[in-house]
Amino acid sequence: MLLSYAGYIAVAAAAISAALVAGRNKMDWFGVVVLASVTALGGGTVRDVFLGHFPLAWVANPALLIICLGAAFATIALARFMPKLHYPFLVLDAFGLVVFTVIGCEVASSMGQTAIIVVVSGMVSGIVGGVLRDMLVNEVPLVFSSELYATVAIVAGTLYTLGIGFGWPEDWVALGTIIIGFALRLLAIAFRLEMPKFIYDKDIR
Amino acid sequence: MLLSYAGYIAVAAAAISAALVAGRNKMDWFGVVVLASVTALGGGTVRDVFLGHFPLAWVANPALLIICLGAAFATIALARFMPKLHYPFLVLDAFGLVVFTVIGCEVASSMGQTAIIVVVSGMVSGIVGGVLRDMLVNEVPLVFSSELYATVAIVAGTLYTLGIGFGWPEDWVALGTIIIGFALRLLAIAFRLEMPKFIYDKDIR
Amino acid sequence: MLLSYAGYIAVAAAAISAALVAGRNKMDWFGVVVLASVTALGGGTVRDVFLGHFPLAWVANPALLIICLGAAFATIALARFMPKLHYPFLVLDAFGLVVFTVIGCEVASSMGQTAIIVVVSGMVSGIVGGVLRDMLVNEVPLVFSSELYATVAIVAGTLYTLGIGFGWPEDWVALGTIIIGFALRLLAIAFRLEMPKFIYDKDIR
Repeated sequence: MLLSYAGYIAVAAAAISAALVAGRNKMDWFGVVVLASVTALGGGTVRDVFLGHFPLAWVANPALLIICLGAAFATIALARFMPKLHYPFLVLDAFGLVVFTVIGCEVASSMGQTAIIVVVSGMVSGIVGGVLRDMLVNEVPLVFSSELYATVAIVAGTLYTLGIGFGWPEDWVALGTIIIGFALRLLAIAFRLEMPKFIYDKDIR
Repeated sequence: MLLSYAGYIAVAAAAISAALVAGRNKMDWFGVVVLASVTALGGGTVRDVFLGHFPLAWVANPALLIICLGAAFATIALARFMPKLHYPFLVLDAFGLVVFTVIGCEVASSMGQTAIIVVVSGMVSGIVGGVLRDMLVNEVPLVFSSELYATVAIVAGTLYTLGIGFGWPEDWVALGTIIIGFALRLLAIAFRLEMPKFIYDKDIR
Repeated sequence: MLLSYAGYIAVAAAAISAALVAGRNKMDWFGVVVLASVTALGGGTVRDVFLGHFPLAWVANPALLIICLGAAFATIALARFMPKLHYPFLVLDAFGLVVFTVIGCEVASSMGQTAIIVVVSGMVSGIVGGVLRDMLVNEVPLVFSSELYATVAIVAGTLYTLGIGFGWPEDWVALGTIIIGFALRLLAIAFRLEMPKFIYDKDIR
């Protein structure tokens, strides 16, 4: 229940974050709507295809497309009145990352998938939309930039899977996971927490 | 019936348009066949996966693959005898856009999807093949260039959906939609009809 | 049976080849694991989605994910002790190409698909993982470089399909196909065997 409301808000947040990126790339209105929809619904779409979970979320519930459309045009109309959007952009993106991760875990879990697939499903659900957004405008995806990003999805997915495994109430597990994951991503940005790198400099091609 | 013949012609047209692009990029014969197949069948493939509509069109009917193969090698053999191909390329591409859109609407409609999904299915079906073609050779997709393109698919999809909703005969609705959509795309090219742009110049990353 | 063991080895080989590419691109540990998994499992995933063959191999058998994870971290730990890796990289890649092709044919064949779809399934299974690896790090995919690559997959797929069609024992057909295909790819690299190119230099856009 909680998760379903949080999902609508996360779709709107992801669509707005994408519309801002579209505007910075001077896309036309159609491009803004497409980028908003791909970003907000792409993670869930890839997850559902991987799991063979048909119909897709937005096919079963086209209201999700309407939300993307509305968020895109609201951003077009209101962006000029807003201050510098560096931090709002990162916060919207972080919110989508965490909520989509929890929804992805919930979908796989309700299909009776194994724990590892539940966590992978959450990760795909959480990060793929943002990766597609960044690839479509030729930016280096946030997921490959230095701060923890996918790791946040993996941690959140693991916490959610453990919580459900302990038999705790789903709404509380979802809420707790969202709060912890969101805080972790913001801390990662603030303190530049990074994963170690693998550097291999011999020629292989 | 009409739609099924138009579909074969559109597959050949899209494969030829893609083979010309492949030749301009000096691809080897294998690359020509792959680019032709991805362009001609990619939109329908993504549409069918989104709708959970298995088997895919070309898996159920491998003749579609043979058409792509034949069109690719015919283009390799005959391209040298042809004049400058700027306009033929745009006309072939426009024909594929409109016919694939109508086929995409028909598939979703016959599955009993809602009107919004029927239109989105047509749009995906119509534009994704050309987008993949342009991305694979690192050109800016026609869909993101300035003239109306996806808008043509949306208008055509809406007209088709309305016509079927009014209970008009399917063949006539399909034929009318193809003619109107094709004319609209050619007018958009001729008169440089464009969607308005969203330009947002504050820094967000 | 043989094919199932060869499959695990090919997954590890593909994951190692990808981890080396990741290291050369200075990716963090998460990126290494993702690139290894996408390379090793991407071809089979796209094949299964095209065939509507759910659940996907790695969803049904998450041990495949664990192999990718293990291969990625083993490469991180051991790469510094290894000599120049140009040829090992190409050999690992060739092994994955041929084994994945045969597995792809086997999957389509066991679904009762037509011969042309069996060969296409093998080709998709064989080449898509490597294409995704190269695209994600912005290198020109091996499949589009000059030596025979996809052609090897098509030849191997055709041999396998013929062998099964003749009613020969599956293990022997698989083993023979893997040996011939692997030899063909290495010969193509050694002697720079190429497909002819289609060069078309009139302006089309």
